[in-house]
Amino acid sequence: MSTIYEKALEKHVEWKGKISTELKMPLENRDDLSVAYTPGVAEPCRQIHKNPDDAYKYTWKGNTIAVVSDGTAVLGLGDIGPAGGLPVMEGKCVLFKKFGGVDAVPLCIDTKDPQEIIKFCKQIAPTFGGINLEDISAPRCVEIERALIRDLDIPVFHDDQHGTAIVVTAAVINSLKLTGKKAEDCKVVVSGVGAAGSSIMRMLYNLGIRKIYGFGSKGIILKEDYDKYDFLKKEITEFTNPENKRYTLAEAMKGADIFVGVSVPGVVTEEMVKSMAPKSIVLPMANPEPEITYEKAKAAGAYIVGTGRSDYPNQINNVLAFPGLFRGALDCRSRKITEEMKIAAARGLASLISDEELAPELVIPSAFDERVAPTVAKAVAEEARKAGLARI
Amino acid sequence: MSTIYEKALEKHVEWKGKISTELKMPLENRDDLSVAYTPGVAEPCRQIHKNPDDAYKYTWKGNTIAVVSDGTAVLGLGDIGPAGGLPVMEGKCVLFKKFGGVDAVPLCIDTKDPQEIIKFCKQIAPTFGGINLEDISAPRCVEIERALIRDLDIPVFHDDQHGTAIVVTAAVINSLKLTGKKAEDCKVVVSGVGAAGSSIMRMLYNLGIRKIYGFGSKGIILKEDYDKYDFLKKEITEFTNPENKRYTLAEAMKGADIFVGVSVPGVVTEEMVKSMAPKSIVLPMANPEPEITYEKAKAAGAYIVGTGRSDYPNQINNVLAFPGLFRGALDCRSRKITEEMKIAAARGLASLISDEELAPELVIPSAFDERVAPTVAKAVAEEARKAGLARI
Repeated sequence: MSTIYEKALEKHVEWKGKISTELKMPLENRDDLSVAYTPGVAEPCRQIHKNPDDAYKYTWKGNTIAVVSDGTAVLGLGDIGPAGGLPVMEGKCVLFKKFGGVDAVPLCIDTKDPQEIIKFCKQIAPTFGGINLEDISAPRCVEIERALIRDLDIPVFHDDQHGTAIVVTAAVINSLKLTGKKAEDCKVVVSGVGAAGSSIMRMLYNLGIRKIYGFGSKGIILKEDYDKYDFLKKEITEFTNPENKRYTLAEAMKGADIFVGVSVPGVVTEEMVKSMAPKSIVLPMANPEPEITYEKAKAAGAYIVGTGRSDYPNQINNVLAFPGLFRGALDCRSRKITEEMKIAAARGLASLISDEELAPELVIPSAFDERVAPTVAKAVAEEARKAGLARI
Repeated sequence: MSTIYEKALEKHVEWKGKISTELKMPLENRDDLSVAYTPGVAEPCRQIHKNPDDAYKYTWKGNTIAVVSDGTAVLGLGDIGPAGGLPVMEGKCVLFKKFGGVDAVPLCIDTKDPQEIIKFCKQIAPTFGGINLEDISAPRCVEIERALIRDLDIPVFHDDQHGTAIVVTAAVINSLKLTGKKAEDCKVVVSGVGAAGSSIMRMLYNLGIRKIYGFGSKGIILKEDYDKYDFLKKEITEFTNPENKRYTLAEAMKGADIFVGVSVPGVVTEEMVKSMAPKSIVLPMANPEPEITYEKAKAAGAYIVGTGRSDYPNQINNVLAFPGLFRGALDCRSRKITEEMKIAAARGLASLISDEELAPELVIPSAFDERVAPTVAKAVAEEARKAGLARI
């Protein structure tokens, strides 16, 4: 076992949980008790009974979200069950609080049935200002998220789909700026057509990119194979591979401006990168080893390289997105998180790199840059208000 | 609106939630992140996947419970919905933390179907070390609690049933000691045969009292009317009213040693108290006004009087029971909370009043006595270990 795993085990035993619940008010005597609890508490209860939205005013709802997982797709570990996923969900809650000031509660639940997960989230909705779905396997996760967005009036967001997509979009926005390329002229190849890949392709399409090619484990996605696909891949055929050709990955990479990888280590060779258009943008994010290493991509002539790793420049880390996104949604008591709000988050994130700073080694800010969450939050809340989704 | 309600409303707006989630560990740099989150967190996940009980070791499970309510019986307000109940559940979580050091999460859920509530609790069980059911209307609450106790391997406890019962039992233990009365000789009248009343009667029966008479809104419970009752009242017929006679409340009170009220204000007259046995014990706990006031009961000759109110001696407050009870159950990672553990809690609580202190005005300690929760916890954990229900 490597040192980091040994240390993590040791520390988790020491911590016995990474978050706790704490009092936000004094409770030292009977008077305090009569205000926070009976008989005083009856009055906020009565007010909320008359107007359920008053829960935002009198309870923790306005600053608290649930992080819900069924434990079916935890990190790279797969289906390790709800208890197995709990350390990750607690960690996620830590990040929500640390970076976004959002109170977050891990709820690892013992059911894999999408309809039951949907029902569960609806049942807890009165208690929370938002729901972050996490580590639920694809394509079920998409079905679950869509049903909840449709039916609930609090924001629901599946981070595995959209978190990375927002940060990739921010990196692409700044990369286009730096290289002088235009979205409508760009050709993009995406390796990985699961939850994350499909959200990335959709966001890049909404950014104005029209030549997108998606590759799964069985090759390129194309209309011809429509009937063989699950609903998620079927949707991808609608806005990718405009020529409807059965390119290999190597063929598609020829002349491509951007490569995005959310698949498996090593699928991209130096030759493929060499064959890309000048000033190419290469974002291989497979974990822990990328589709092509930072060094190899650079050696092959890539102009901008970003990976999921913290030990290289341009770390594509979803912690840059989700805390500020929910911070913004909660600040304006939004009813939804929309595609436009995600794009606003990406633009906000991209704006943190000034024209002077912008360089191949710096297209995306650091996770510890304190401006990140407030900037993303502001952009998201503005967009929610513009769309009429905000309560305040 | 009275001052206390105005103040509560004002303070709830100021607090915007009475609890928050907070970090228990440092998160200042990438190294911290790699231990608390990826990649390090994968190792505790793998361990828990191999052995789900390791969740106690590596996560918040060992110190965290859920406070679950459907909002159907909130305080005296009735069915005010899940959001309406949230201020109370948050308050409950505050008390769990303040008095028992137990992390507690309010979960107000949008369903009233007992089977759905049971399913919900089973779904969240992997995340929590225990479940406190709260403000769920009777008799559904009993059905829900029993199913969960049967099927889950974490403690499940419905405070409205057993919280007050434990404190009443403690008060009775000390009152018997003070008056020199023996449980087996005592006659007890209980006004109120819902969730709380039935649990009180059961605990007093388990304490050795055999002459118990229960009164509902339609009079005394007796075997003759068995077919008219819900399952809860049917059960009460099995161990109360041994003569199976249709006494009035006034008739039953004649010669009674103990009166316990969990019903409605004013149902007990001074004449009834006067007719009780010498050194009578009167515990009228209807809220906010008791079945008979402290002054009237005393004037009518009651030897020991205890009410739910904090402005008179002997406050029967369930906060004396539930924080220590769950503290003890979590400390030994108990699989259940049993009837014997509740009796142990009552005995622990009673033991805090020394023989020298014991007096008609002091049969039960104060809610702010810091010895309460640790003493109750110790008694509860010992009993769980004795019964083979403890994991450690």
